[in-house]
Amino acid sequence: MELYKETCNKITGLNKEVMEEAQKRLDYLLKPQGSLGKLEEIAKQLSGITGRINNDVTKRVIVAMCADNGIYEEGVASYPQEISTLVAETMCSGLSGVAVLAHHAGAKMHVVDLGLKGTVKNSGIIRKKIRAEGTLNFAKGPAMTKDDAIKAIEIGIEETNKLIDEGYQLVGTGEVGIANTTTSSAILYAFTGESLDLLVGRGAGLSDEALAKKKEIIKKGVELNKPDVSDPIDVLAKVGGFDIAGLVGVYLASAARKTPAVIDGFISGVAAVIAYKLNPLSKEYMIPSHITDEPGGKIITNILGKESMLNMHMRLGEGTGCALAFHIIEAATAMMNKMGTFGDIGM
Amino acid sequence: MELYKETCNKITGLNKEVMEEAQKRLDYLLKPQGSLGKLEEIAKQLSGITGRINNDVTKRVIVAMCADNGIYEEGVASYPQEISTLVAETMCSGLSGVAVLAHHAGAKMHVVDLGLKGTVKNSGIIRKKIRAEGTLNFAKGPAMTKDDAIKAIEIGIEETNKLIDEGYQLVGTGEVGIANTTTSSAILYAFTGESLDLLVGRGAGLSDEALAKKKEIIKKGVELNKPDVSDPIDVLAKVGGFDIAGLVGVYLASAARKTPAVIDGFISGVAAVIAYKLNPLSKEYMIPSHITDEPGGKIITNILGKESMLNMHMRLGEGTGCALAFHIIEAATAMMNKMGTFGDIGM
Repeated sequence: MELYKETCNKITGLNKEVMEEAQKRLDYLLKPQGSLGKLEEIAKQLSGITGRINNDVTKRVIVAMCADNGIYEEGVASYPQEISTLVAETMCSGLSGVAVLAHHAGAKMHVVDLGLKGTVKNSGIIRKKIRAEGTLNFAKGPAMTKDDAIKAIEIGIEETNKLIDEGYQLVGTGEVGIANTTTSSAILYAFTGESLDLLVGRGAGLSDEALAKKKEIIKKGVELNKPDVSDPIDVLAKVGGFDIAGLVGVYLASAARKTPAVIDGFISGVAAVIAYKLNPLSKEYMIPSHITDEPGGKIITNILGKESMLNMHMRLGEGTGCALAFHIIEAATAMMNKMGTFGDIGM
Repeated sequence: MELYKETCNKITGLNKEVMEEAQKRLDYLLKPQGSLGKLEEIAKQLSGITGRINNDVTKRVIVAMCADNGIYEEGVASYPQEISTLVAETMCSGLSGVAVLAHHAGAKMHVVDLGLKGTVKNSGIIRKKIRAEGTLNFAKGPAMTKDDAIKAIEIGIEETNKLIDEGYQLVGTGEVGIANTTTSSAILYAFTGESLDLLVGRGAGLSDEALAKKKEIIKKGVELNKPDVSDPIDVLAKVGGFDIAGLVGVYLASAARKTPAVIDGFISGVAAVIAYKLNPLSKEYMIPSHITDEPGGKIITNILGKESMLNMHMRLGEGTGCALAFHIIEAATAMMNKMGTFGDIGM
């Protein structure tokens, strides 16, 4: 069987029994029941994921999937395409936003090139180019073949499996790829048919005119390619990108290996939606980090039924939201592992 | 001059010149301008507070003001009054929610007894009881004299000054005091006259019936005491508590000493409102942490015009939100101090 199908089939629901035990423990901690809100929810979810009451998330990593997008040539982005490779380079050298925040959060960066047009010089990059020129322009035809989409998903699975084998306990998702808010909005548009005003944002900072053009191109691209919404891989292949596909693999492998995976912003949220459509149980292993300023973020929240913990008005992507969320998730384990109980004070 | 007046008079606005420099630096970092949202805002605010572009907030503390409230005897709380002293005890011994989260956030706890009915045994407590029985019942008369309110504020100022003298760079606010959501709602009601439905919540978990009673008592207490809303100390004395007064001092001293102070939830938010009313410039030194689940939180947000970074559905108080926010604030300094610039990549 193909690795991605095998991985999908391996995903099971959370351990409800341990979650009930976790709830009992939470209710016995020195506080009014439920008064630590989402911190309690996260602790309980971690228990359901790992099957343990007390968890450890100190060994953590952000997997950043990097690739270029053919749709760039339609003028949908506010930065030149060369920036993708430059940002991936700075992710490896420690200068990019996510690299700095990951370091601050005690997390490793795992940067994968799935099809950047340029060559990252830093030897820290994982070289897995599927197509040296990135994807094709979905305004003219499918962005990639279904085989290439599956290949990208499976690289995501393999890399994540390796990291989990190395002992990583918490996985964050990041990405680089000029024009990847366009591919992300196109995927959501294909799935939901929602108004483009609710799905398409300014990315790194488009003008009004460029935003209108971006919507127009997404509409035309989806109409031209007619993705089959009953087949998430078809949607991904026709209007998506290698970066998104790679992240789908990250979510699937994390779920199959009972490891929590943190959703960053809009692009990694769209990848989460595809993983969810491939196996709805994968959602149970996901933890959203922050509310993205991209408008489509709300649609993702609705599809996944998961509310973010941070409201930072961030829209950089890269995995920056995950880095901030890691500390909060670890705080949930500190609460569970170290807080006193009513028993401790003789009540 | 009285210490609290002197402290109020010492507060000046932020350093706008350094904030402009900070903005230039932020815009030169490797990211679309403004794309790190609130992280950038925090970094800029820190620059305005300290007068430095690069800041350090690694030495941090949560000041928890603890006291009992006479209004407890009206049956407005869902826990017995003895819990105040027990929680203060566990704050000192490291078992309470905030103690665990502060430890996780690399912050010290500074726990001050301003009028707990019981005696905390742990020698870590700072013993500053103003009145051994806590405040009086504001349903029958003023909770405290104006002199005692000023005394509590000045203890807050003195403790904070000591901590800043010791090198603390970031101050969080916490509190303990059964029935202190009642005093907090009463203060907001006195100031705003808003509907009690918007101001009064379930605290640690009141029933519908008890919630209705709590509203009734707040209304009667404010009508009976007729606090003079043009005099914030009068409002604080008549329907407030020693814990809130102590925190007012924490905010005032932090602002006077150009040190950022983090607002926790509802009760410390009400203290922030009083500090703001005593000197509107004090607000510039405050950083809100999380959106409290107490309904009055929204009113505080409106008064201070400041949006929280965390949405955790927490309602424990104690300073727990500050502990979570410390890491995000430190992440803002990491961004400012360590992120690469467009110059670094030759652009």
